[in-house]
Amino acid sequence: MTFGTVAILGPGLIGGSLALALAERGLADKLVIYARSARALDEIRTAGVDAELTGNPSEAVSEADAVILCVPIETMAGLVHEFRDALKPTALVTDVGSVKASVDRDLAPLLDQRALWIGSHPMAGSEQTGFAAARADLFEGAAVIVTPTQHTQPEAERRAKKFWEALGAKLFVYKPALHDLLIAQISHIPHLMAAALVNHSSEEARDLAAGGFRDTTRVASGSPELWVEILLANREAVAGSLTQLLSSLTKAHDLIKNGERTQLLKLLQMAQHARSQLLEKKPSLNKRP
Amino acid sequence: MTFGTVAILGPGLIGGSLALALAERGLADKLVIYARSARALDEIRTAGVDAELTGNPSEAVSEADAVILCVPIETMAGLVHEFRDALKPTALVTDVGSVKASVDRDLAPLLDQRALWIGSHPMAGSEQTGFAAARADLFEGAAVIVTPTQHTQPEAERRAKKFWEALGAKLFVYKPALHDLLIAQISHIPHLMAAALVNHSSEEARDLAAGGFRDTTRVASGSPELWVEILLANREAVAGSLTQLLSSLTKAHDLIKNGERTQLLKLLQMAQHARSQLLEKKPSLNKRP
Repeated sequence: MTFGTVAILGPGLIGGSLALALAERGLADKLVIYARSARALDEIRTAGVDAELTGNPSEAVSEADAVILCVPIETMAGLVHEFRDALKPTALVTDVGSVKASVDRDLAPLLDQRALWIGSHPMAGSEQTGFAAARADLFEGAAVIVTPTQHTQPEAERRAKKFWEALGAKLFVYKPALHDLLIAQISHIPHLMAAALVNHSSEEARDLAAGGFRDTTRVASGSPELWVEILLANREAVAGSLTQLLSSLTKAHDLIKNGERTQLLKLLQMAQHARSQLLEKKPSLNKRP
Repeated sequence: MTFGTVAILGPGLIGGSLALALAERGLADKLVIYARSARALDEIRTAGVDAELTGNPSEAVSEADAVILCVPIETMAGLVHEFRDALKPTALVTDVGSVKASVDRDLAPLLDQRALWIGSHPMAGSEQTGFAAARADLFEGAAVIVTPTQHTQPEAERRAKKFWEALGAKLFVYKPALHDLLIAQISHIPHLMAAALVNHSSEEARDLAAGGFRDTTRVASGSPELWVEILLANREAVAGSLTQLLSSLTKAHDLIKNGERTQLLKLLQMAQHARSQLLEKKPSLNKRP
């Protein structure tokens, strides 16, 4: 089974890994890769990926049976505008953005009646970016969420699921808004926390840092330009979730200040318990130093 | 060079690692290990550590040239009370507690004129506990802070520094109160944050968690019983530091809610920059999965 001609738009960490994974698993009859810059295309060429390379998005999608948008979320709508007239009406179009409600709100109307659209979010990657960090096994065992709405064609959902499953991903299906809330909890808010913790530490303190601090703040190494767009694209869920967390932290502050041992212990025990379930559920995949 | 007879009181992760490290490096003429429970002593015996084992603290310290307190901070003063009459007046007494002002306030008066006292804090270990997790290389490259006060005898400071340096540690010297503030920033507050993040995530969200969330919350797996004592022993610095952090997070919340891209980008850039300095400064030592 293959997915026919697959067009990958934006060969960064995720797009590049997709190209490598599809090639390694023989899942595409033909790969087409689009990048805006000649330099990015040169990088793919030098790496010897077996794909047609182009700087023209319409050219990239014109024969494609599946189009995967791997560009930054704030540039997606503009790009879709450029290529949508060239799409085959049977083409599946999906994306890999970390935020889904705003992406669906922007793209669904642009693609309506022109292709089969559904949003996707592979929970893979790291604080690294760019094709240089791409790897063929990035999606193996990784969670991928597909986010159908009431307007999604069943055929789009079916094919998107098959696509990610063929890459070894563990599939989840959530509506865009619920996806955004869950991801705010385990990705966007933790990112903000990590950044705040680093900013809040003095240089003297950081000199003393052991493995714990290094791990807790690792995600703060991620691209600020990428993350500012993610946080703002999901601003409603992030702000709401952060408000709740701030209220919990204020309570924790009071427990410590007042020396309320029993309640504080309970808080730490709950966390240890929930964290241990996390470990049981999934081994540490895609871990980088 | 050796440190003569070394008594280790409390053979958990840190005390056990100390015993293994001293033995491996031939730094003690004789090792004496005290544990309250027969079961803990059996564990050391079974592991074949070359040491005299005892359940009597006075017996443990009576010949010791160096006494290292590796018991939980809330039990230190009681233990010192038990053995202090048996100490040689030339003995160095130090501890490995994660909090220093309260430990010094408790122990310095008890040991005054009876031994050479100074506090220490090796920044090593992990969310694991107990002798089973001990390893001889735990202190290699790890930061160790010794915390002299105006009452500390220069001889105590000199010998404590030599001791930790001989184990391969990177030495820092701070007054107890400054130590506690710095450690609140890079250890105690991050621990609270990790616990709050886990508690704040739904089970559905945790199912999606990738490597980032796993790393960010790793320290929340630490022993709740141990950590509640650490947080309360350092309650002043922790509460003060948390108040500041909450104020920064409230600002971040407002930036997101109001879509203030430029300020939010600045916040993330500052964090990325500071985090990158951390990576340059120290390779990831003592890292566990």
